Parts: sequence; structure tokens; C-alpha cells
Amino acid sequence: MGYGHVAKAFLKLLASRSEELLAEFGVRPTISGIGSQSRGLTLYPEVLSLEQAVQLVETGADIHEAGRQVQHLSEFIAGGKAAGAVLLLELTTLQPKDGEPALTHIRSALEAGLNVITANKGPLAFAQAALLESAKKQRVQLRFESTVMDGLPLINLAQFTLPMVGMKSFRALLNTTSCLVLELIEQGSTLAGAIRKAQEIGIAEADPWYDLDGYDAAMKTTIVTNTLFNSRLTPSQVKREGIRALSLADIRAAANAGTPYRLVSKGRIQAGKVTALVQPMKITADDIMQVATGTTSLITLETEAMGAMTLIEHDPELMQTAYGVLSDLITILRQNPTLTAPN
Amino acid sequence: MGYGHVAKAFLKLLASRSEELLAEFGVRPTISGIGSQSRGLTLYPEVLSLEQAVQLVETGADIHEAGRQVQHLSEFIAGGKAAGAVLLLELTTLQPKDGEPALTHIRSALEAGLNVITANKGPLAFAQAALLESAKKQRVQLRFESTVMDGLPLINLAQFTLPMVGMKSFRALLNTTSCLVLELIEQGSTLAGAIRKAQEIGIAEADPWYDLDGYDAAMKTTIVTNTLFNSRLTPSQVKREGIRALSLADIRAAANAGTPYRLVSKGRIQAGKVTALVQPMKITADDIMQVATGTTSLITLETEAMGAMTLIEHDPELMQTAYGVLSDLITILRQNPTLTAPN
Repeated sequence: MGYGHVAKAFLKLLASRSEELLAEFGVRPTISGIGSQSRGLTLYPEVLSLEQAVQLVETGADIHEAGRQVQHLSEFIAGGKAAGAVLLLELTTLQPKDGEPALTHIRSALEAGLNVITANKGPLAFAQAALLESAKKQRVQLRFESTVMDGLPLINLAQFTLPMVGMKSFRALLNTTSCLVLELIEQGSTLAGAIRKAQEIGIAEADPWYDLDGYDAAMKTTIVTNTLFNSRLTPSQVKREGIRALSLADIRAAANAGTPYRLVSKGRIQAGKVTALVQPMKITADDIMQVATGTTSLITLETEAMGAMTLIEHDPELMQTAYGVLSDLITILRQNPTLTAPN
Repeated sequence: MGYGHVAKAFLKLLASRSEELLAEFGVRPTISGIGSQSRGLTLYPEVLSLEQAVQLVETGADIHEAGRQVQHLSEFIAGGKAAGAVLLLELTTLQPKDGEPALTHIRSALEAGLNVITANKGPLAFAQAALLESAKKQRVQLRFESTVMDGLPLINLAQFTLPMVGMKSFRALLNTTSCLVLELIEQGSTLAGAIRKAQEIGIAEADPWYDLDGYDAAMKTTIVTNTLFNSRLTPSQVKREGIRALSLADIRAAANAGTPYRLVSKGRIQAGKVTALVQPMKITADDIMQVATGTTSLITLETEAMGAMTLIEHDPELMQTAYGVLSDLITILRQNPTLTAPN
């Protein structure tokens, strides 16, 4: 589901790893259907090979041509399963209000016994615990590494490499649009000019205020918080303040004083109570966050047993999001090498 | 094997997680023997509970009291196995020349069908590939997260969270003693004073020149290189240059120019050929390495699919090394929940 930039980059990346996938897992991925917001739902009863799928991407051919259109999600899932599908990739564009229709896509796929990988923050932010329970019940996996900091292994780090570490808190820069807009204003841009620049490089959401008012950061903060602390916050429980109230003069004065504003996410667990917030803060000169310029994102974890550690993703591009999807796919394969649906 | 600071910190950490281990894996760890450089090999045929072991640590009681001394490693391993041991912890002090006797401890334990966790760089730097093959043959695990950057999940990150990422190169500050000594000299210390300070905070090796001449960094570089690139370098194949040739004036002039010297590790794979080096380099003002002050260590990975990412371990203490051992133990438990030796 979703046939935009991320899906296309992922198909190419997957094709580039096809020999490794075959050698390590004996798997040759095929595509049994593509759902596109503009072109609807198309099934390929004979499945597309990866080569055919990459050709579709590269020629820009109509996804309908080699397939059969269907109207309803249930038909799409049933038709996909009939052609052997064991996995749904949910890569549609975020709808920040309630995470739909991606949430329905994921819920339906899990209930049909498909594994799911998503790069879409919405469904996770609104329903992570319920979706993970559904996946567990169906004995399939739901993976979502790319929802936060693209493919940088933050979700998987927490799951696989920091067991019983005693997570205490985190501080992070998770919304690159707002950081970049602040930086451009510091360098003399107008607000409109800074937003235009962020849109040009393709990182801003369709409505830039969704970034600048902190909604994107609040969703990511929700996912990180719930993943690290095993909690059940919803985005509305994240205290949220965007950069709207900061004047150009405020922004430039703070930067000139060596303590620039950035839109900071924080979460913590204390005496079993989990809280999280998103708000503009002045970054002091000795703060590790000073290193995150441009589109670089960063998170510092505070733990009981490992003290503090920081992960930085430098200047990510589209490929990094696609890689997160690939790494999720390999994680699923490792735990279920035949990747056959259990029911 | 090894009953120094790390072993003692680990026993306390393990005890603090005993409820979680019981709840998640149904496991209650016991100790069937302790080997100490000064006190020899002691077996506990009735095994020590974790509470008894922590009491030994806290009272400083003689490890012989509750046990039976043996002379030979083979007796120690056989006696441990007879009491139910499934795991050897190798936490002795590094012998930089050839990694012995730790290498023999690990090799013998693996051959006897024990899982092994080590925080000792030597055996891994000299024989990682051979030891991993021995472990595989015996269907046991050899884990070594704490050999580099303590418990920061670098080894496990590579193994579990960055599959098929296309590792290209890394740059790192892995030896904190040399970085701290350089920093103290920049601030006006003499070389002897700086070394004394590093020894006081307990991070320098017994012979500080082992750090300052780059031997420690070369070993860690060997392990990181072989882990990331699946290669078989030995420490002598790492081009090594320490900070011995830098004068105090050189060091201070570079720092005053905003480009301080640090002992940098680098490794890369290019057209299938793997190379690695350790040498003092001037760190430019825009380099992420500038953030690593004090005992903070840092690594930047360059990858094909995920671009560049940096991991920073801030001001580690003993606990971080102990945590790496615990995380390795949990990794083994996850893959073998009953933790029974296969033969």
C-alpha cells in the first residue's frame, strides 16, 4: 500500500539485495499487488518479479497494465493472499488527524494473518499497543523501524540490543523540518523562504505547519516513548508546543547568543509514570544537540545500566527510510525464515 | 575467570536483574566456580547462589572459603560443568602480547561445549574468526559486546539491526586514555601528570604506553573491523601510530588552532580489500569527533544504504562494561531460553 517515493526507493533497494536474500534465506521476493492513492488497488494474480516491479518504477508505466483492479481493501488483501502474499508494506502518506486510512490497512492485514512493515507514523502513534497485540495474536510481526529517524536502528536497538538496561529518559531532535527552518531563519531567511526551502528538499509534510506546530514530532515522540518505556501514550497526551510563537527576532537573538532554539522531544519514566513533551528549547553550547545541523537528527538515551548514549543520523535521504523497511523485512525473515503465513 | 572490578560489578548488576531474568526466562543464575589471578581456581560443587556471590563481593571474603581449589583449567571447566555450568565469563585482565591466558580459557571452554562471554579484547583481536568457528561447531555462542566501547551496543547493532546495510567504513575514538591524556596536556598538564590522572580514574592499562602507543586502539580496531566487514585482520595488520612522537608544544598548538589531536581509528572495505589504521589526527572544527571530551568514546559508520550514523557513549564507568556482559547473557538466553549445554 502506497506507491510513492519511499515505495519506489524500497523496490530498487530490495532488488539490489536480491542475491543476498536468496543466498541467506533462500527467498526471492515477488509483488502480488500495489495500492496507490491516485491509481487505486491493483492485483497481480501471477505476481510481479522484482525485476518487473523495478521496471514499472523506472519506466513510470501504469501499475494497472499488468494487473487487475479491485475496489475494496478486503478484496485486495484476499487477492494478495491468494497469490501467496505473506507481508503488507504500508508506505502511504501520513494523515495526521487519526492515522487513517493506513491504520485500517494495517489492522486488516494483521487480522488476515499478514506480517506488516510500515514507515507511516500515524497508525503506530495512535494504536501501537493494540496493533502489536493483534500481531501477536495472529503470530505475525508488525515492524516500524522507519517511523522514527528513518532506518537508523532505534526501534530495533531497543528491542534487540539493550535488554534490561533500565531506560530512564530520552531527549531528541526528531523533526528535521522545524530544525532546518529555524537554522535558515538564523541565517537570514524569512519564515516563508525557510519553509519553501524545506519543501524543495522534500522533507516538509504537505502542510508545513504540521511540522512547525510540533504534530510530527509529537507522533514520533509517542512512538519512541511507547517503545522505550512499554507505555500506551497517545499523541494527545504528549505536551506539545511548536515554534509558531517564536518571532524571527527571538530566533536570531538566541542563535547569536550561542543558544539556538530547536524543537526538542523529551520523554521519561519516573516511579512508573510516563510523560513526554515536544517544545522549542534553547540549546546550550555544551549540549550534544548542537551538532545536529541541516537535516541531521539525534537522540540521547539515559539509562540506568549504560548511562547516556547518543545516536545520530547524518543528513538522511530517501534511501534511509527505504533501508529501515528492508531491515524490518530481514528481521522478519530471521525469525521466520520460510516467511509463510501461519494461517 | 577473572574476579576484578568488572566481574564484581557484573555480579551486582546480575543480582539487580534477577527478578526480571526469572520472569522473562525462568532462569536463576548460579556460580559454579571463580578463577582469580591472585587466588587461583575455586570450584563450588554445590554452586553459589547470586546472593551468596554478591555477599562474597561485598564482604571481600576469601573466594576459597566456600569452595574447593583446583590446579588446572581442565579440572576447573570439568568441575564447573559437573555442577551444571553452561557459560564461562572471561573477565581477566588483558595481556596485550598474545591475548593469553584468556585465549586458552575461551578456546577450552568452547571446546568443552560452554557458551562464552568475554570483555577481554585480546582473544578476540587475535583469534575472532577461529573462536567463532569453534563456537559454531559446538553449537554454543561466543559474545563480546564489552570488548569495544563497553556495553554500548556496537557489536550487537551490527549483528542484529543493520543487515545488508553495505558497510563501507568507520572512524572512531576507541581509546579513552589517549584522548584524555591529550586533553589534559592541552589544558596545561605535563605528560606524566596527565598519565597519572588517567590512572587515578582507572581507565589506563597497567602500562599506560600500551594505550598511548595505540596498542589498545589497534586491538579494538581489529575487532570492530572484523565484525563490521567480516574480515580476518590481526592486530599486527592494523597500521599503528601512537601519540609518542607528538611534543607537548605540537599538542597545544593544534588545540589552540581549534584542531586538537586525537588518536583516531579507521577501517574500510574497498573492492573486497579491508584495511585499518590507528593514528593521531587533527580534528577539524566541524568534525563530530569534537564532541568526544573526557572519557566519551564515539564511532561513525559509513554505509551504502543508511549513509552515515554516529554512536556516542558518554562518560562510561565500570557499570557500562558490566552491562555489556549482561546484555550478552540475555542475547544468549533469547536464542537458547533453557540455556542448557548442547552436549
